[in-house]
Amino acid sequence: MRFGPSPGDGSRFIGAWADLAGVGRDHLRGGFSRHVFDDAEMQLRQWFAEQALRRGLEVENDRNGNVWAWWGAPAPGAVVTGSHLDSVPGGGAFDGPLGVVSALLAVDELRLRGVTPTQSLAVACFMEEEGGRFGLPCLGSRLLTGAVDPDHVRRLHDVNGVSVAEAARRVGFDPSTMGPDPARLASIGTFVELHIEQGRLLRGVDAAAAVGVGSEIVAHGRWRFTITGQGNHAGTTALADRQDPMIPAAAAVLAARRVLSGFDGAVATIGRITPVPGGTNVIASAVSLWLDVRHTDAAVTAAIVDAIAAEVRNEAAAEGCSVMVQRESMSDRVAFDPGLGLEISSRLDAPVIPTAAGHDAGILAPHVPTAMLFVRNPSGISHAPDEHADADDCAVGVQALADVLETLVT
Amino acid sequence: MRFGPSPGDGSRFIGAWADLAGVGRDHLRGGFSRHVFDDAEMQLRQWFAEQALRRGLEVENDRNGNVWAWWGAPAPGAVVTGSHLDSVPGGGAFDGPLGVVSALLAVDELRLRGVTPTQSLAVACFMEEEGGRFGLPCLGSRLLTGAVDPDHVRRLHDVNGVSVAEAARRVGFDPSTMGPDPARLASIGTFVELHIEQGRLLRGVDAAAAVGVGSEIVAHGRWRFTITGQGNHAGTTALADRQDPMIPAAAAVLAARRVLSGFDGAVATIGRITPVPGGTNVIASAVSLWLDVRHTDAAVTAAIVDAIAAEVRNEAAAEGCSVMVQRESMSDRVAFDPGLGLEISSRLDAPVIPTAAGHDAGILAPHVPTAMLFVRNPSGISHAPDEHADADDCAVGVQALADVLETLVT
Repeated sequence: MRFGPSPGDGSRFIGAWADLAGVGRDHLRGGFSRHVFDDAEMQLRQWFAEQALRRGLEVENDRNGNVWAWWGAPAPGAVVTGSHLDSVPGGGAFDGPLGVVSALLAVDELRLRGVTPTQSLAVACFMEEEGGRFGLPCLGSRLLTGAVDPDHVRRLHDVNGVSVAEAARRVGFDPSTMGPDPARLASIGTFVELHIEQGRLLRGVDAAAAVGVGSEIVAHGRWRFTITGQGNHAGTTALADRQDPMIPAAAAVLAARRVLSGFDGAVATIGRITPVPGGTNVIASAVSLWLDVRHTDAAVTAAIVDAIAAEVRNEAAAEGCSVMVQRESMSDRVAFDPGLGLEISSRLDAPVIPTAAGHDAGILAPHVPTAMLFVRNPSGISHAPDEHADADDCAVGVQALADVLETLVT
Repeated sequence: MRFGPSPGDGSRFIGAWADLAGVGRDHLRGGFSRHVFDDAEMQLRQWFAEQALRRGLEVENDRNGNVWAWWGAPAPGAVVTGSHLDSVPGGGAFDGPLGVVSALLAVDELRLRGVTPTQSLAVACFMEEEGGRFGLPCLGSRLLTGAVDPDHVRRLHDVNGVSVAEAARRVGFDPSTMGPDPARLASIGTFVELHIEQGRLLRGVDAAAAVGVGSEIVAHGRWRFTITGQGNHAGTTALADRQDPMIPAAAAVLAARRVLSGFDGAVATIGRITPVPGGTNVIASAVSLWLDVRHTDAAVTAAIVDAIAAEVRNEAAAEGCSVMVQRESMSDRVAFDPGLGLEISSRLDAPVIPTAAGHDAGILAPHVPTAMLFVRNPSGISHAPDEHADADDCAVGVQALADVLETLVT
């Protein structure tokens, strides 16, 4: 990367970043829990609106719970940047908010540079990118682009049984208007999302690279396994009488690791498992678990899920349990705009890297020219309290984003 | 069993039982969730107080959150019966409340019989028998008998981080007075607890037996395993970089089944497991799971826990995770008063059976002559919504309890 931050850029970043540090701390899990429409996420929306208004941007909510801040009037050909405010449960500080804060600081930078945009510029915050509350990631961008049925979305519910419709109404959004928004989609000329890197590729490909450019998102999806047995007393139920769904559930966790040896470059994870009722002295009546599988090739992800499901069905049959597998989401491999990526990479002298993480940029990419910038993550840790990017690298990210936006809006 | 219910006893039972049907329904898990000091359990306490007052009984809360309803003044030699109002999460209707409702109906029956007690009689509802909220079962009877340190109890907390002390204060109990209550313990001359059977022994030993008499509670305990790894992103973290605590956790579930083949008559169960943070697209940073082990011999339960812990430690080491094992509770085998049991069994012509379920009666048994009556459970299912006893059998239970109490108070 040829250019670096000016002196003081790191501290300017730190100053802007500090606003978010206290919002949505998760004292049980560590890190942050900011879930769509909860108190913490609404506080961040409020903070975003205030920041945008201080910069003279026009703030509006769209029909799908996404927030937009406009420099110039909404119009076809607009340059849009941004990311999301929500987190996974007990997540890090950077995944999401870094792209939003960087976008606001990039606006400041463009003004410092005296840039007069000939295209309107918008900073967008997309709703429920993580799927941390309602299970389906990139909810706001999927609704906007028509990638998901709004009736299905309205009925999704959180762990407390609160539906998307109800949660939206509680914070003043009208869920009845959710759904495809072709006029808004048509107004987006280019979308650029800046995000913390979630692996260690940048460190690997170029020790000097604070920022990289995304080439593709590998195919990834989520499957929910519901294993049903017979709830019973943990003390008084003889082994021969047990139909314990935890046994095939445990087999699923181990299978999700073991079958990968046959599929190079694939990953599979079970990080969420819920026995029902979940009592210490109770044989579970059912277990829900979520399987996350990723590989460049969608056919390979499907084959991995099939292999795991087959093992679980065998174990379940032996235990007298039944298994239901539901695909909750599946995103095929998405390539970002190759011309745009090449241009950005060459302008920034930044390496090009793929990612195995889903992003709203991946949902928008089939519809509009889309690019992603990644900021170096020294440990590669993400979706965890230890997620970190150095302030100096974040400042380089702001400069890089401003540079890209400047090219696009002038 | 030589005597049966009079005509109409079944419907009398059904009438009394119906009061509880709507309280604490768990619409997510099925069945009932009534946890100490929550709205549902407080409603049941209110119901109990009203029922006791309607019968002219004197209601008092003791220092440990247990409720007592007295027929006659509290005095040494009192005959005490009762059970508990709380449930496991998503539990059945009978485990606990059956003993309380039967006790109230037995008081009615004694009055119908014209019995004039020469000993005071009390109906007691013990606090947090299941440990469903704070993890330690038989909390009320353990505190009363001095089996647990009240400072330790006050600091126990529920899944939301609310401590026993805080939860007690919220509903008007003073947690500072919790602790051994030797005067109250000394006033108990005999304790008799009626409970739904939680296995199928009654069906097994005697198809005609609606009621059985308890001989012993086998040794049982709960151990919490905390497995710590490194939280990370489910997509971008290469397999070689993973320290996923779900892998050794799954091994624990399978080990808890496999090692039992070496220990005849033992059972071990993992029905509660909590990955932190528990996100679908997140490698867990830590997993807590609870192991429940039971066997007649306490040394055998310890050996089983050791064998499982050794397997988990091996798997954890291979995954770069660490393991901590904490004993949350351990109850040695408890034999009920053999003379009293023999007398009751002979009077009722009822079979004598052991149980692998813990009860407040097991905590009181080392201190006062204690007996248990079990009501037949056709399926043997317990701690689950399907838990069931026939109303006619419950009516026989009331008659049997009244018969036992009549002998003891006169």
